[in-house]
Amino acid sequence: MSGDHGLRVNLPASLHALRTNTSLRLHLVGDSQAIQAEIGTGLPQRASIVHAPGILAMDASPTGVLRNTDQSSLRAALELLATGDVGGMISAGNTGALMALSRQRLSMIAGFRRPAFCSALPLPSGHSYLLDLGANVDCSPEQLHEFASMGSALAKALHGIHRPRIALLSNGREMAKGNSQIQRARDLLEGDESLEFVGFIEGDELLRHRAEVIVCDGMLGNVALKSMEGTAHALGDLLKASFQATPWRRFLSMLSRGALQEVLRGMDPGRHNGAFLLGVQGVVVKSHGAAREQGFTAAVQQAARCVENSMVALMTQRLDSKQ
Amino acid sequence: MSGDHGLRVNLPASLHALRTNTSLRLHLVGDSQAIQAEIGTGLPQRASIVHAPGILAMDASPTGVLRNTDQSSLRAALELLATGDVGGMISAGNTGALMALSRQRLSMIAGFRRPAFCSALPLPSGHSYLLDLGANVDCSPEQLHEFASMGSALAKALHGIHRPRIALLSNGREMAKGNSQIQRARDLLEGDESLEFVGFIEGDELLRHRAEVIVCDGMLGNVALKSMEGTAHALGDLLKASFQATPWRRFLSMLSRGALQEVLRGMDPGRHNGAFLLGVQGVVVKSHGAAREQGFTAAVQQAARCVENSMVALMTQRLDSKQ
Repeated sequence: MSGDHGLRVNLPASLHALRTNTSLRLHLVGDSQAIQAEIGTGLPQRASIVHAPGILAMDASPTGVLRNTDQSSLRAALELLATGDVGGMISAGNTGALMALSRQRLSMIAGFRRPAFCSALPLPSGHSYLLDLGANVDCSPEQLHEFASMGSALAKALHGIHRPRIALLSNGREMAKGNSQIQRARDLLEGDESLEFVGFIEGDELLRHRAEVIVCDGMLGNVALKSMEGTAHALGDLLKASFQATPWRRFLSMLSRGALQEVLRGMDPGRHNGAFLLGVQGVVVKSHGAAREQGFTAAVQQAARCVENSMVALMTQRLDSKQ
Repeated sequence: MSGDHGLRVNLPASLHALRTNTSLRLHLVGDSQAIQAEIGTGLPQRASIVHAPGILAMDASPTGVLRNTDQSSLRAALELLATGDVGGMISAGNTGALMALSRQRLSMIAGFRRPAFCSALPLPSGHSYLLDLGANVDCSPEQLHEFASMGSALAKALHGIHRPRIALLSNGREMAKGNSQIQRARDLLEGDESLEFVGFIEGDELLRHRAEVIVCDGMLGNVALKSMEGTAHALGDLLKASFQATPWRRFLSMLSRGALQEVLRGMDPGRHNGAFLLGVQGVVVKSHGAAREQGFTAAVQQAARCVENSMVALMTQRLDSKQ
């Protein structure tokens, strides 16, 4: 129901994901009248509506949300996940509320204390996961260590990587770099033989696949990811403007349509939409509030892939086998 | 003498800046034999060599540097600045050493306690300065407040902006966002009537000119700026690869040369090279270690512009008039 565009984008995006994955079943959680009106007559196969008339405001405070017992679509969707009726849930709504309610309604995977938001970076090939992206803005070194374990378990579970490389995001590669929090986290990671710690990496190495898992506190990760998104957006605008500047260039842009669209697609953060809330018992995917149809579809597909790959069970097993 | 490419890049870049600015005088500080050999016969007009045979290692520790009394080119250049023989200095060397030696050799502008690295963001129009970029990786809220004053004084001095807008970099615009350090800095900035504080901005707004001065701790600023650089680099590669993928596209890339070069220039972080060390009595510009000729030239030109505009005197005056 939520996000910047609400049902108008989220619903067709979800139904698109449903059509492209014949093993997917969708529970559309929200105001049933509004959903039915948007769909028109009938319901697609493998889709059902779960009535939950309330919508949480985007600026609702996380603590207020916990006291609120209204039938918000967010709470209802998490309830389905908590009871095992669904394997994963997707939300484009209030991130703080999603985090707070997930912690209230879902158990943590044994071995983890606090969940973290984690996203795949848009690499041309290979996989790099960045966490935390904002679930924890004041982090202890011990939390950064825990994020490394979570990310490592995720990369093992989703991609079968034996020993995922772990790096700490810092302001330089040299040992003397980092602030006091990052330096103490480095000591913890160096002392943990179950993890393949490869040292510090800098912001300009995030897209170079130097590690499968890149760890930082939620403030740093949030700003790094959004800085990348903002740059991609600005450069996409520059590319479009440059090829529209003169009649001759507009003609060239028509001829170069294939190449230009390829580049603009590569620059579109919406294509890589969908952050996992890692550490909880269940697949929870947060879609960017501003995501449009393609982006929200990607978030639903991402959640489906994690459920199909038994991500949570594998994360639990991998941790057990480590201990 | 230093940086990834040393004299081979820094010297021709400096001489290029000298040719383009007829009021500039250059002191080339380093090993005189090596410099003379690189130049060939004679010395260009308005250039002189200051012999300083030592070079600081890129990984020399800042504290070791302070004990070291060798004639490093960095120390000798800062000495020229401290005695007033030059108005500004440029280095591509060890950032920590530059920071430590600057603090040892140069006085602070009255009203400031610790210097910060500050860089202009690559906007299509207007000016936004981001600080700190790594001089202070563990910051108190009071330091963030001080960075805001420094940046405000800089924007007033360089661009004559009456009340530069100040924003705090955070993980969201809403009041409840930020970590404890950022939230306390917000309280300080809201209470300072001499500053035009406009609230939080997010990483994806850095290039949107929502403020003339964007304040954060050195870890956040370093990672944000480098994340932007890395993204621009990756997208530049994508653009080049896409227009080389087939013979037809290679043909189109020849026809579209003007537009493509315009975009690639816009994506090149080297063009915006040169961070100020703000707060010290003198113009100190740090060039990116990896900067090539165009980038190092930009850093020299940036330093020259600040000296010509009496940046330090104006920053001092503006502070006086504020009090």
